[in-house]
Amino acid sequence: MKIYLYGIREDEKGYLKEWDKAHPDVEIDYTHEIFTPETAELAEGSDGVVMVQTQPYQRAALKKLQDFGISKISVRNVGLDGFNFQDLRDFGLSLTYVPVYSPNAIAEHTTSLILRLLRRVPEFDKKFANADFRWFPTIGEEINGKTVGIIGTGHIGSVVGRIMMAMGAKVIAYDIAPNPALENLGIYKETLDEVLEQSDIITIHTPLAKKDIHMIDKDAFDKMKDGAIFINAARGGLVDTDALIAALDSGKLGGAGLDVLESENDVFQKKFDSIADVKDPQFQALINRDNVIITPHTAFYTTTAVHNMIFDSLNDNLKMLQGKAPKYPVDITE
Amino acid sequence: MKIYLYGIREDEKGYLKEWDKAHPDVEIDYTHEIFTPETAELAEGSDGVVMVQTQPYQRAALKKLQDFGISKISVRNVGLDGFNFQDLRDFGLSLTYVPVYSPNAIAEHTTSLILRLLRRVPEFDKKFANADFRWFPTIGEEINGKTVGIIGTGHIGSVVGRIMMAMGAKVIAYDIAPNPALENLGIYKETLDEVLEQSDIITIHTPLAKKDIHMIDKDAFDKMKDGAIFINAARGGLVDTDALIAALDSGKLGGAGLDVLESENDVFQKKFDSIADVKDPQFQALINRDNVIITPHTAFYTTTAVHNMIFDSLNDNLKMLQGKAPKYPVDITE
Ligand SMILES: NC(=O)c1ccc[n+]([C@@H]2O[C@H](COP(=O)([O-])OP(=O)(O)OC[C@H]3O[C@@H](n4cnc5c(N)ncnc54)[C@H](O)[C@@H]3O)[C@@H](O)[C@H]2O)c1
Ligand SMILES: NC(=O)c1ccc[n+]([C@@H]2O[C@H](COP(=O)([O-])OP(=O)(O)OC[C@H]3O[C@@H](n4cnc5c(N)ncnc54)[C@H](O)[C@@H]3O)[C@@H](O)[C@H]2O)c1
Repeated sequence: MKIYLYGIREDEKGYLKEWDKAHPDVEIDYTHEIFTPETAELAEGSDGVVMVQTQPYQRAALKKLQDFGISKISVRNVGLDGFNFQDLRDFGLSLTYVPVYSPNAIAEHTTSLILRLLRRVPEFDKKFANADFRWFPTIGEEINGKTVGIIGTGHIGSVVGRIMMAMGAKVIAYDIAPNPALENLGIYKETLDEVLEQSDIITIHTPLAKKDIHMIDKDAFDKMKDGAIFINAARGGLVDTDALIAALDSGKLGGAGLDVLESENDVFQKKFDSIADVKDPQFQALINRDNVIITPHTAFYTTTAVHNMIFDSLNDNLKMLQGKAPKYPVDITE
Repeated sequence: MKIYLYGIREDEKGYLKEWDKAHPDVEIDYTHEIFTPETAELAEGSDGVVMVQTQPYQRAALKKLQDFGISKISVRNVGLDGFNFQDLRDFGLSLTYVPVYSPNAIAEHTTSLILRLLRRVPEFDKKFANADFRWFPTIGEEINGKTVGIIGTGHIGSVVGRIMMAMGAKVIAYDIAPNPALENLGIYKETLDEVLEQSDIITIHTPLAKKDIHMIDKDAFDKMKDGAIFINAARGGLVDTDALIAALDSGKLGGAGLDVLESENDVFQKKFDSIADVKDPQFQALINRDNVIITPHTAFYTTTAVHNMIFDSLNDNLKMLQGKAPKYPVDITE
């Protein structure tokens, strides 16, 4: 049995080796390249493929898998927007994904962003570099006693809620389908507006459904408290970035922690010669602010998460090859 | 009735004004200067004094208070090592302090230091400045699943424990007098050594008793797990800094977050022309490391804490002046 993996990064190799060792009957091979009509050839002779990429999975590439007699695909992440399910149906392909690899990775990163903003770490870092070790005027704020609004209380948002409560925050939340595990806490508000209006700190943890593109727009920022802190470690498209920039410019927003950006595919995971070479105007409008922290989509990037992405995807791919039910099948019927 | 305050910082003035407004019968006045035999003159004509400083409270200065008929002193912080109680007894002076101004301020800062080390923020910051937005090789670790050892579980350590548990850590602790509020959690170990040996992350929150100077010495670092993370936001003297530096040099210690240093009085709260002008060799040996984060004794520095330091000290000073029992008297009989 042979499984071929695409888009393997350096940090994934150790876990790949570990899985390989535990499965002596399975042969594995990989490439750093992503899955395209050209690289599809590399999978010839394999039984299953495992992949992950932000670029779309092309129909011509998927067609080649059918030509090679490969019908089992597993992706190592949660996002499936790169697939046209019609392609999968046309070529008789089955798909699994990894819906949850480590909610804590993102929840802890969210907490870190909040703390770095409240305690003015970017300003303290500059003072330190200037050999200025005085306190004033860089006084901070505590999470304790603040109202933290969580939009979307699924795997990640619920962990953020638990952490914020332990820190002494008053947690309020909005979810189109409240989480039964949290309902008895009395945190849910009927409307998104209530959460926007009442929170000192707002953090969003919903998927990016088409209807939710720019859920956080000018209207939403207008409704927030003056000086509110806004965190997005979910998806860039949830936020109207120009409205965010305007809210920062006007002083309406007190700060922003952004692990995702609308135009991140032009910036993140790349290396430029200098910051000036990053031609994205929204990125440039955001970075030179003491009250904005941008991280390059690294909220998930922990050894635990990467381990789980490799192990869960390979385990499910193997299960399909063995004719067993995978743990995380994707329903591609619609 | 008149109260005179010493060592007032800019960030305290707003709270001073607020307290003043709420107490129209009390006159208050202040200086930025600390309390010395020279500045003691400024208190003449006042009924009580409120102060805070890291430098010793000099006998000659305290004597002047007696000369002026002032007998009520309140300090705005917890540390009393600057007083010789014999001086207070000799001059008939009563003292109050502020034992707890905001445990959350320090617990949240501790959490922030841990997260910044685990998620390799100093390295990501450098990459960002170099326009490098790639993930590899800066993969992080989660608090979730780690064993966090807490030494000293009083006001601050107990909050740190609560936060770490909410993040999914296994919390273990050592305290010479276990906190009754935590005892049923089964976190306490019989010995300090067990906590040193079993923890992935160790954070200390004990006072600096004379017997505890260098509690964390070479032996203690040797007992720790390879790659352990060590946090000190309590008192610099608890740690043998040379042993800490050696443990970092050898790679035994995976990282350190230090809000306090043995020699901090020569560095913190000062402004130098450049980092090179800071002549402290321990400081210089610590700063140029990606796995060390130093903050200039700012763990406490939040608006909540500063508010409480001003309000609690002034309230207690006024109580004494009115002949009422203060909330936080200091026993100066020994
Ligand atoms: N930054 C990163 O590295 C990273 C990593 C993983 C996941 N994510 C993102 O985090 C987000 C949350 O992931 P999750 O695993 O917690 O998802 P989840 O599906 O477990 O939870 C999402 C929650 O949002 C709710 N929701 C959906 N639409 C909503 C709306 N319009 N208003 C309010 N609530 C709504 C759902 O009912 C659900 O409770 C996703 O956008 C995901 O892509 C980011
Ligand atoms: N970095 C800052 O800005 C900042 C601000 C405030 C306080 N602090 C420091 O934080 C520390 C803790 O403060 P707190 O308010 O929680 O104190 P606390 O008195 O409430 O708690 C201290 C705990 O340590 C325990 N303890 C004492 N000696 C011990 C030993 N040798 N081994 C194990 N446990 C021991 C005590 O039993 C107690 O439970 C103090 O050193 C204080 O000076 C730092």
